[in-house]
Amino acid sequence: MGDAAREGKVAVIGTGLIGGSIGLALLKSSPQLEVHGFDDDRRCARAAMEAGAVTTMATSLSEAVEEAATVVLAVPTDAVAAVASEVAAAPGAAVVTDVGSAKHLIVEAATAALGSRFVGGHPMAGSERRGIEAATPDLFQGASWILTPSDVTSQDAYRTVRALVTRVGARPVAMAARDHDALIARLSHVPQLVASALVTLAASDAADTALLGLAAGGFRDVTRIAASDPGLWTSIVRTNKASVLAALDGFSGHLRELRELVEEGSWDGLQSFLAAARGARLDLFQKPSYEGEPHNLALLIPDRPGVLAEVTTAAGQIGANIEDIKIFHSPEGGTGRLELTVSGESASSDLAQRLTALGYRVQQDPIGI
Amino acid sequence: MGDAAREGKVAVIGTGLIGGSIGLALLKSSPQLEVHGFDDDRRCARAAMEAGAVTTMATSLSEAVEEAATVVLAVPTDAVAAVASEVAAAPGAAVVTDVGSAKHLIVEAATAALGSRFVGGHPMAGSERRGIEAATPDLFQGASWILTPSDVTSQDAYRTVRALVTRVGARPVAMAARDHDALIARLSHVPQLVASALVTLAASDAADTALLGLAAGGFRDVTRIAASDPGLWTSIVRTNKASVLAALDGFSGHLRELRELVEEGSWDGLQSFLAAARGARLDLFQKPSYEGEPHNLALLIPDRPGVLAEVTTAAGQIGANIEDIKIFHSPEGGTGRLELTVSGESASSDLAQRLTALGYRVQQDPIGI
Repeated sequence: MGDAAREGKVAVIGTGLIGGSIGLALLKSSPQLEVHGFDDDRRCARAAMEAGAVTTMATSLSEAVEEAATVVLAVPTDAVAAVASEVAAAPGAAVVTDVGSAKHLIVEAATAALGSRFVGGHPMAGSERRGIEAATPDLFQGASWILTPSDVTSQDAYRTVRALVTRVGARPVAMAARDHDALIARLSHVPQLVASALVTLAASDAADTALLGLAAGGFRDVTRIAASDPGLWTSIVRTNKASVLAALDGFSGHLRELRELVEEGSWDGLQSFLAAARGARLDLFQKPSYEGEPHNLALLIPDRPGVLAEVTTAAGQIGANIEDIKIFHSPEGGTGRLELTVSGESASSDLAQRLTALGYRVQQDPIGI
Repeated sequence: MGDAAREGKVAVIGTGLIGGSIGLALLKSSPQLEVHGFDDDRRCARAAMEAGAVTTMATSLSEAVEEAATVVLAVPTDAVAAVASEVAAAPGAAVVTDVGSAKHLIVEAATAALGSRFVGGHPMAGSERRGIEAATPDLFQGASWILTPSDVTSQDAYRTVRALVTRVGARPVAMAARDHDALIARLSHVPQLVASALVTLAASDAADTALLGLAAGGFRDVTRIAASDPGLWTSIVRTNKASVLAALDGFSGHLRELRELVEEGSWDGLQSFLAAARGARLDLFQKPSYEGEPHNLALLIPDRPGVLAEVTTAAGQIGANIEDIKIFHSPEGGTGRLELTVSGESASSDLAQRLTALGYRVQQDPIGI
């Protein structure tokens, strides 16, 4: 089976903003695809059908996943574990992924239920609007989509989910689930709480409410995400509690440092703090992106679990884009061969260096791929 | 002299982003106007001249203000007081305003130097970009512009600055300087520090820097202003130290509340907090705006200082837009008459009610305005 049809029939469980957008994006890029939907909210299910986000809407989760080759769990973050168990109990042997904004607890629970056929996922795109009404086929265009393969994730599952992510227009990046949670607590979950706290501060004096309209564009930008769905965010924070608390403490430390600089009138210190933050912000979206012609790498690998996760995560850490990955097990066991295709020559050599440092024997530009 | 020409020749001291944009906006709406510029940074002065932000560029502050009827101090916030003293020592008797982002200390110092001819101002518009290169005639279009008349500000000064603000496309709102500082600390200064702290948090782990590009649109929005000029922001925070510290403490309190909810697993409490913030954010920019036909009010006023500031501030507190204000002093002293024109009937009656509550004798729709 070629990658073009690797996802096969797709089931989307939960057809709100994210699930609906996945359906729309899949059907935009592959109009012949079958996308089965299921949503236990009937109004939402009907709206998704009307919006053309699915080709059929099932009346039960079991019916939706029965013939699917790929199942996407697009339910709230704190519901993924339970729905993964339902899928495990349903007929079929589909590859399963999710879109939860926290990964460690989900991967642990879903892997216990689904084993090698589960790959955690988290699209780095969204909207402060909610529901199928806000869904759009372009939601993921150009966005990163983090994948968190576990030690037991099969290469078939990984390649299938990777293909789906690429098909909706996103850029897959692999990462360990715990690393994801710590990173996203800092990049998303704490900023979300902070935006809500800023609005609360602004609105705290009742006499001022008529004056809040005075706020300039900066305030509007900083607090836009505070209009997001409180239920979804509670679900996310709940599933990433430990990392959120750690990141909140880190943030409070930086805030205390700022307060001390202001209190003590250390204006040079304040300016240095702001200048460093400015530099980081300007750099943030100017990272060299590894694009270019596909390059190949081959690795001799020990035939043990976790190699796929280790190699894809190493690529994710340097921002390299893995276009394809294949594992060949040796018939007599012991040692296998892993072949990778990576975008761009510099990504290829950076990744080779990193993998060599991890103890792998790496061949660049191997013959025979 | 009619309002159309009230500002007369305008001098703009400091021709960066704000001063340059004021010049461009004035000359766009009134191409016949004379705008004299001065900037002690010669490169900046030359660029402003080339950009057409001024009609002539003076070689000294004294030369720029000499023939001006209105002087705008568009220098960094912590430089306004010193430049106001220079203007006081220069020839001429122009009305003077500034654009500093903190007002109490500035109004105190500039009023000591310039007396009744100073009116503090703060345009609620800006950019994270800096310098004349980022200046645009539309920067203030539709933005609020806070004016902070003092107890001794003359009605001529107030009306002149008000006319200039309207001419560049902004909506003037009067407010007491201390109220401004407390409000803007919450709406602008603390959000600025918070955005910088969030970037610092995100960038704090060096291993992650390659991964920061994963940040989704929410993080980009929240931290956009962290790219602003560190020098300008240090100058602002320095001039509004007390209010910034108070607002930082208020913010930290809200953050602690959030942390406790997460730590204790009070998910209903967290959801309520986020829902309240969401509601406030959605309301924020949907305040009923008082627009409509001009309505007139007349007040009998005691002939004492501070009435102009009191009345304009009362209008600012309810968001009413004063289109015109005139004070008639009685020849025998003791009691005068103040006539106001306000946009919209409901603003007019709300303001009448508020002024009556403050002890004024108010006539709605008086004959003879």
